[in-house]
Amino acid sequence: AALETVRSMNDRGIETRRPIEVVNWTNEEGPRFPPSMLGSGVFAGAFERDFAYAIRDAEGLRFGDELERIGYRGDIPCRPRPLAGYLELHVEQGPALISEGIQIGIVEGIRGITWLRITMKGVRDHAGPTPMHMRKDALVGAARAISAIRDIPGKLDPDLVTTVGELSVSPGAINVIPDRVTFSVDFRHRGEAVLARAHDAVIEAAEAAASAEGLEIEVDPLGGSTPVAFDPGVTGAIERACSEGGYSSLRLWSAAGHDARYAADLCPSAMIFAPSVNGKSHAEDELTTWEDAARGCEVLAGALLTLANRS
Amino acid sequence: AALETVRSMNDRGIETRRPIEVVNWTNEEGPRFPPSMLGSGVFAGAFERDFAYAIRDAEGLRFGDELERIGYRGDIPCRPRPLAGYLELHVEQGPALISEGIQIGIVEGIRGITWLRITMKGVRDHAGPTPMHMRKDALVGAARAISAIRDIPGKLDPDLVTTVGELSVSPGAINVIPDRVTFSVDFRHRGEAVLARAHDAVIEAAEAAASAEGLEIEVDPLGGSTPVAFDPGVTGAIERACSEGGYSSLRLWSAAGHDARYAADLCPSAMIFAPSVNGKSHAEDELTTWEDAARGCEVLAGALLTLANRS
Repeated sequence: AALETVRSMNDRGIETRRPIEVVNWTNEEGPRFPPSMLGSGVFAGAFERDFAYAIRDAEGLRFGDELERIGYRGDIPCRPRPLAGYLELHVEQGPALISEGIQIGIVEGIRGITWLRITMKGVRDHAGPTPMHMRKDALVGAARAISAIRDIPGKLDPDLVTTVGELSVSPGAINVIPDRVTFSVDFRHRGEAVLARAHDAVIEAAEAAASAEGLEIEVDPLGGSTPVAFDPGVTGAIERACSEGGYSSLRLWSAAGHDARYAADLCPSAMIFAPSVNGKSHAEDELTTWEDAARGCEVLAGALLTLANRS
Repeated sequence: AALETVRSMNDRGIETRRPIEVVNWTNEEGPRFPPSMLGSGVFAGAFERDFAYAIRDAEGLRFGDELERIGYRGDIPCRPRPLAGYLELHVEQGPALISEGIQIGIVEGIRGITWLRITMKGVRDHAGPTPMHMRKDALVGAARAISAIRDIPGKLDPDLVTTVGELSVSPGAINVIPDRVTFSVDFRHRGEAVLARAHDAVIEAAEAAASAEGLEIEVDPLGGSTPVAFDPGVTGAIERACSEGGYSSLRLWSAAGHDARYAADLCPSAMIFAPSVNGKSHAEDELTTWEDAARGCEVLAGALLTLANRS
């Protein structure tokens, strides 16, 4: 969409007061090399470049080496510099627009995200002769923690979401009591106070589950990002572009992380959402129609022109 | 121990009324090619040979092909034939002997074992924008099932044991709601009625957990074995050998599966247990002292001589 917008401007001979740059951030997703939004985070000064290069994946490969290997370790310095504004078009990845039949989402901010890795250690033993009361089963502890973590939003705040997406069991044999289970926790909310309470609640739930089963527990922070409210001037420019295009719009907060999170630390920023069919993403059947993508692109171009021509 | 016993008999020129055979059964453990005790099961007629050869591991390799590859697919027919008796020496793998300071276990039977594989299917989606009430999280369903399965013995029978040893999550990314989780269930008891009730309880617990999360569920039987009581004549021979050696002994039932389970379908059988330090097994720190191993071997030899000289 960014390329198309700039190409269209060039085709029509449109010149702007400020230059426009197109960026494709490295490692936005992050599961292989956590934390996510690593490229934009380094650009915005949230992470040191050498911290990023040194991150290792599950096989021990370094992020910097892998960038080099695929030819993506460029020579232009990745560090903060003055920017007049930042816009990002994305699919919503949630059900708000599609369920209300709205064409464009005007994103007013991004919820904070916390990632943890929790490891529970018990005692490996034979699944037959070991009496139930003598067991320290790491998978039972993890299961009880996961169940409790699922229930935290209902108790704490209806806008909080909690997810356990990764889990590995060792040794992982049908007739052996597991002695080690590691799982991830992802939780998100727009308020820092709720995030802090969720953090405590997740750790309390995991500790209680571990303690009931006699397990040791280790909690490792895997990064995340604090909530950010976007710039009213930029969301206003998006709203104007929607009106000009005749598109219905809804103001909302993103629950997914985006590079705009870090751009907002540097300059006035905001995001535009196009609807996701069935509200789905991170799944093979995720879909945004070409019509919705084109509308998003048009709103991006309109808002971009406003921002790039500001004095 | 079996080789040592026969070598010692040969060294001393001892001849027996009946011939003695030493056997090393294939695939006793079974996690790669379930069900366990496959070699003895085929020998005893519990499984067809072609059923065994056709079993595939997680990578799709066939058991028969793998036997061929490692040179273990011999040409002596593996099928039932008349036997006068069967003895098996094993480490206890549990805490009964070590905790009472007893030297030899006389095994009176083997508990029945059931193995299941349960798959829960939900909906893959983004861990951020998907509201908690719209989720169908396969890992949450599995976690609740595992927790409930752990509690079944306390409700049903104190001698029942239940274990979930294997679990895999798909897609397994920190920021994606899992849509598919597969886990194993292993449960054991000496009574067939309790095993049947445990089977129902496991499936009810899994179905309830799946239904609460809106998941589909699939339960696949992975085999197992019915309980068996050993032959009093053979346990008597073991007891006599203990008395002759001056060793303390305890009569008990095995909760671990053993090839003697299938041998008992063919002929009078029983087992001898040596103590396991800390009652541990299927773990790196499992240990049986050389002194205990030697005592077990001596009792094996004594009982074997009794059986092999019977008219």
